[in-house]
This record gives sequence, structure tokens and C-alpha cells, in this order.
Amino acid sequence: MLTAHAYGATSATEPLSPMTVERRDPGPRDVLIEIKYCGICHSDVHHARSDWRDEPYPLVPGHEIAGIVTAVGSEVTRHSVGDRVGVGCMVDSCRECSQCRQGQEQFCRNGFTLTYGAEGEDGEITQGGYSSHIVVDQDFVLRIPEGIALDEAAPLLCAGITTYSPLRHWGAGPGKRVAIVGMGGLGHAAVKIAHAMGAEVTVLSQSLRKQDDGLRLGADHYYATGDPGTFEKLADTFDLIINTVSAQVDLDAYLGLLAVDGALVSVGAPAEPLSLNAFSLLRGRRTYAGSLIGGLAETQEMLDFCAGHGIGAEVEVIPADRINDAYERLLASDVRYRFVIDISTLN
Amino acid sequence: MLTAHAYGATSATEPLSPMTVERRDPGPRDVLIEIKYCGICHSDVHHARSDWRDEPYPLVPGHEIAGIVTAVGSEVTRHSVGDRVGVGCMVDSCRECSQCRQGQEQFCRNGFTLTYGAEGEDGEITQGGYSSHIVVDQDFVLRIPEGIALDEAAPLLCAGITTYSPLRHWGAGPGKRVAIVGMGGLGHAAVKIAHAMGAEVTVLSQSLRKQDDGLRLGADHYYATGDPGTFEKLADTFDLIINTVSAQVDLDAYLGLLAVDGALVSVGAPAEPLSLNAFSLLRGRRTYAGSLIGGLAETQEMLDFCAGHGIGAEVEVIPADRINDAYERLLASDVRYRFVIDISTLN
Repeated sequence: MLTAHAYGATSATEPLSPMTVERRDPGPRDVLIEIKYCGICHSDVHHARSDWRDEPYPLVPGHEIAGIVTAVGSEVTRHSVGDRVGVGCMVDSCRECSQCRQGQEQFCRNGFTLTYGAEGEDGEITQGGYSSHIVVDQDFVLRIPEGIALDEAAPLLCAGITTYSPLRHWGAGPGKRVAIVGMGGLGHAAVKIAHAMGAEVTVLSQSLRKQDDGLRLGADHYYATGDPGTFEKLADTFDLIINTVSAQVDLDAYLGLLAVDGALVSVGAPAEPLSLNAFSLLRGRRTYAGSLIGGLAETQEMLDFCAGHGIGAEVEVIPADRINDAYERLLASDVRYRFVIDISTLN
Repeated sequence: MLTAHAYGATSATEPLSPMTVERRDPGPRDVLIEIKYCGICHSDVHHARSDWRDEPYPLVPGHEIAGIVTAVGSEVTRHSVGDRVGVGCMVDSCRECSQCRQGQEQFCRNGFTLTYGAEGEDGEITQGGYSSHIVVDQDFVLRIPEGIALDEAAPLLCAGITTYSPLRHWGAGPGKRVAIVGMGGLGHAAVKIAHAMGAEVTVLSQSLRKQDDGLRLGADHYYATGDPGTFEKLADTFDLIINTVSAQVDLDAYLGLLAVDGALVSVGAPAEPLSLNAFSLLRGRRTYAGSLIGGLAETQEMLDFCAGHGIGAEVEVIPADRINDAYERLLASDVRYRFVIDISTLN
């Protein structure tokens, strides 16, 4: 057993605090990773506070993990000591169902294992990346190419794949008009990736506050959704809209921005049901779809793509003792564009 | 001008009654059709009663028209006197926009002209197929192959294409598991067509009342949605679900029946908004989409496909003086499966 330094929640209501977690001894197929950076995903806040379900405590959040391999099991072939690696939202799945066999572990028919707050293969509750070390099966460890700094790579493991996967699946590329709703952690990654894929990229953000950033990161156009004229002006325009906003939105208004055969894809969801008029879909054979992170092979493809295009997340690196402050700022949308914890400050 | 016998609504509240309508003299590109049969679509009832908008009265409904060409304009090349022809929901569109040029007149950017209740090219309000004759531009007249009786062909012009188009677009065929929600005018056509396309077809109907018919028409399985066990048993099953029910349905329950990457497609819509939980879509990258009739070329393809597979609608042929009674029976779902007016009884 290895005792790792960590930062986590002891209950749904207390601030996060320093703690330790026990990591299993690496098995034959395990990789021991010394974590260097871990991104703070919006969902970390919801998990830490049991917003979605009753979580097990103590709970160490974090599923945007970047680090260095420090030990490997006897049967590990994919990774070596010293490798730059990452871990995302999944640390295991059944590997036998039709979805796993197709490389879509995120849709594992038997349910994949969340990086934190789930029961792991050893029967213990998994604990995430706000932590000095983690032990993960080699199949769920990704290679981080040299082209991306580890702090800028960490958020790609969730924010990157969550937007890359639907952009790829729905064919973002040259000649396609793609809109990104929301200019936050996911949205800013989506802008960079969609631009690199060759699409014509429009940001739809509440205000024009982040317009300069949006255009700098690769957007061709930037509109404020707070201006009702935006929805008139852009009616019937987009082939694909990626909605990164988890709050309630006016779906009919966004569906009205789709061209014939266009798709609106949500990558997050509010807890409450959404409302939409089916006529918004009938008119123009439009689709409303959802997408959930991505499979492991696709996550590796995303990392390689990002390295090839010089894409990393825009990050604000913070020490561990500022995690609680970062949670509040994140909820206030006061971050450009992803908090990343410098894990060396944990020790 | 030609005075045609007709049966129509004089107001939103009066029963339909005999009337006459004036048809324009056929222009160079027009076809004069002697109507033999006209199907009664559920939407006829809504239009006649101004359920969706204030309709112009007098109003002659009917957009499932089958008849014989009795005269053609000097420039007509597509049709000849004596031809068996049909007219569906559209009698005109701009023909110049990108959608019309792609054969998707149903998504005409300038709005297509409804077969009844719209302003026609002559400035007059269009009047539909509960009528002895109609004059239509040759491009909006379809050929009805010899293989289909005219009374059984009439409903295909709306119910047929409305279900054929999404079945084709979303790839119904061998190896695909397709469910049809609702076993009415549209649903029964969808069952026949999906079966002929080679899909494994399941009917999801409120009860098992029409099960024998469903299996006879080509369904492989038949389940009652009134039985909650149905939604458990069929979870994660279908590649495609065509929802022919215009009333409110529990979208999350139906989305739960979709396999990964499956699509739920509505071809009708209630006036009120629908509710759904975005998680139902994220899980399994599912899509909820809409589809609206089909283009002219696709409608011809559908008629040819149906003729090739011996598919016509299951009809109950009625005389004109029973239209009002048929409306009430239709609202009570008391029809197997489409009322068709014998237009010879109009005169």
C-alpha cells in the first residue's frame, strides 16, 4: 500500500481539506503515476457537494490527471517508467461487452468505473486526482505527447475529449459551420479543437466579455446570446451546435439556429428536465443529441490531435490550498479557462 | 375556370358540408386531375377546426389525393391524360433555394405551399382533395404505379412518405431493430414499409388490441406500452424508433429503449412543449429528431418502393356524407387504418 497526499471532501457541506488516501500496490497490469497536475472540472464541485447523488466520503475529486509513470506491473506493455501520461473520467470498465469491444468504454453496458466515488476493482472506493499518486490499469492510462505541457494537457482528459468526441462524431471540419455554446472550460477547448478541425467556428456566449479570447483561440465569429437579435440573425445557420452549458437553456431558440439536418449536441445536463417543442425538430429534420466524454482510443486520438495542432487548455495553475476558493470562482464563471492544481503543493 | 364538387368546412365549429370550389384553368405546366380517392389525415381534423391556427374558410381539406389525369398544359412533359397520379401535402415551393434544388422541397427556405389553406400561385387560397378535381403544377404531381390500387395509394401520399422518409434517412434495413410507436394511420404504414426494407420491426402500442394486425402487416414483435414491464424488457434495444403519436409521450421512457447511437424520431408534434432529461441523450449518445413528410423525388421513390413490395394502406372507403362521422371515429382511434373518401360519391 502506498499512502498518497490528497485534498478532498469529508462531507457534502465542509470545505475540502488535506487528507491522505491509500493506493493499492500496483498489480501486474497496473501503472503507478506520480501526479503533477489535476484540472478542476465543474462536475468535481457537484460531486464534492453531493449535488447529484449521495457520494461516499471522504472523497478526493479529480479526473483531469497528468503525471509521470513511476512504476509498472510485470505485464504492463503500454507504458514505461518516466512516461508522460494522463487519466480521465474512467479507470475501468467490463471490457467484454459490445461497447467496450468497440472502444466505446464510456457506454459500457455494465457501467464503467468512475475515477472517483465509485467501487473499484479492489472493492475500495476510487479516489481521484487531487492526490500525489494514483494506481490505474494500463488500459485506462493515456499517453501525453511531448507537444503539450502537462498542466495544459490535464484538462484535455475531460474537457478536451468531451468536446472532441461530438465534434468528430458529427463531422466538424472544412465547410461545416459549428457553434459552441458557452465559453468556459469545455467551450474554450471546443473552440480550439473545432478550429483545428477546419470548421467555421462561432461562439455563442451570454455576453461579449470574452470575445477577444474567443477570436484569439480560433473562433471566426462571436455573438452574445443575451442579445435577442442574435437568434434572428443566425437562424438556420449551423450544421452543428455543441452546447457546453449544463444549466437550463431555451432549446427551441438554439434548435432554430440549425440548418436543415443540423444537430444540437449537449455534453452536460441540468438535473431538471428540459422543455422543447417537437416542431423545432420536424422543421428541418433537426436532431437534439447528447454525448458523454469519449472512449479510450478516441481519447488518445484527441491527445495526439491536440499535440499535432499545438492545442492545450488555457489554464490558471493554483496551489492546493486555493481549491476551495477556486470552486467559488468556478461557480461564478471567474476563470480563464480551467483551474489546474499544482500537485507538488500538496506535499 | 372549372367548378369542382367538394366537401369542406365553412367555419371552425360547423360540420363539414357539400360545397363547390373553383379550379383555375390549367396553365402550360399544369395538370388537371379527376380525383378518385382522398385519404383523411388526422391533421385534416386539426385544420378544419383551426386547432393550430386560424384557417381561411371555406376550407376543403385533403392532401392524400389519388386520381386520373384528364388534361395537361402545353408544356407538360411528365404526365399524360389517363395517367394514374397522386398529390400530397405540397402543391408548390420556390424551386430556387438550396433545399428545393436538393429535392427537399419540404424544407424550402421560402416555405412550400400547402395543398389546402395556403395562398397558391394564382393568389387564391388552395383547396384540397375532398373534391372532384384539382389543378396542380406537373412537378408536384406524382406517378402512382400500376401495382397499387388508387384507394390504397392515396394515404401513401402523406402517411406513407411521412414514415418512409425517416426510415430511409436513418437507415432502416437488414440488421436494424426498428420500433414503431403507435399503430394508427401512420404507424401501420411504417410497419409495412420498415418490414419491406428488411428491418426487424417492433410495434409499441398502448395495448395489444391491434396485435394480430400488426403481426400480419409485418411486425416481428408487438408490445403494449401500457405495461410498464415493456420499458424494462426493451431497454437499450432499438437502433431507430419512429414516433407516430402526436400526443404527449414520456420521451425519457422511449429514449431509454434506444441502443447506443440510436435515434428517436417524431413525425408529429403536440401543440404543447415536450419534456425530456438531457441525461437520457448523453447516456448512449442518443438522438431525438424530427422528420417532416419528404421531398418530391423521395415521394416518388416511396410510391415505386411500395408498388414493388405490394404495399398499400389498409383502408376503410367511405362516401362523402360520412366524413363528419369519420372525423369523430378517427379522434376515437376507431379506424383500421385509414379512412379514404370515395370521391365519386361527391357528385
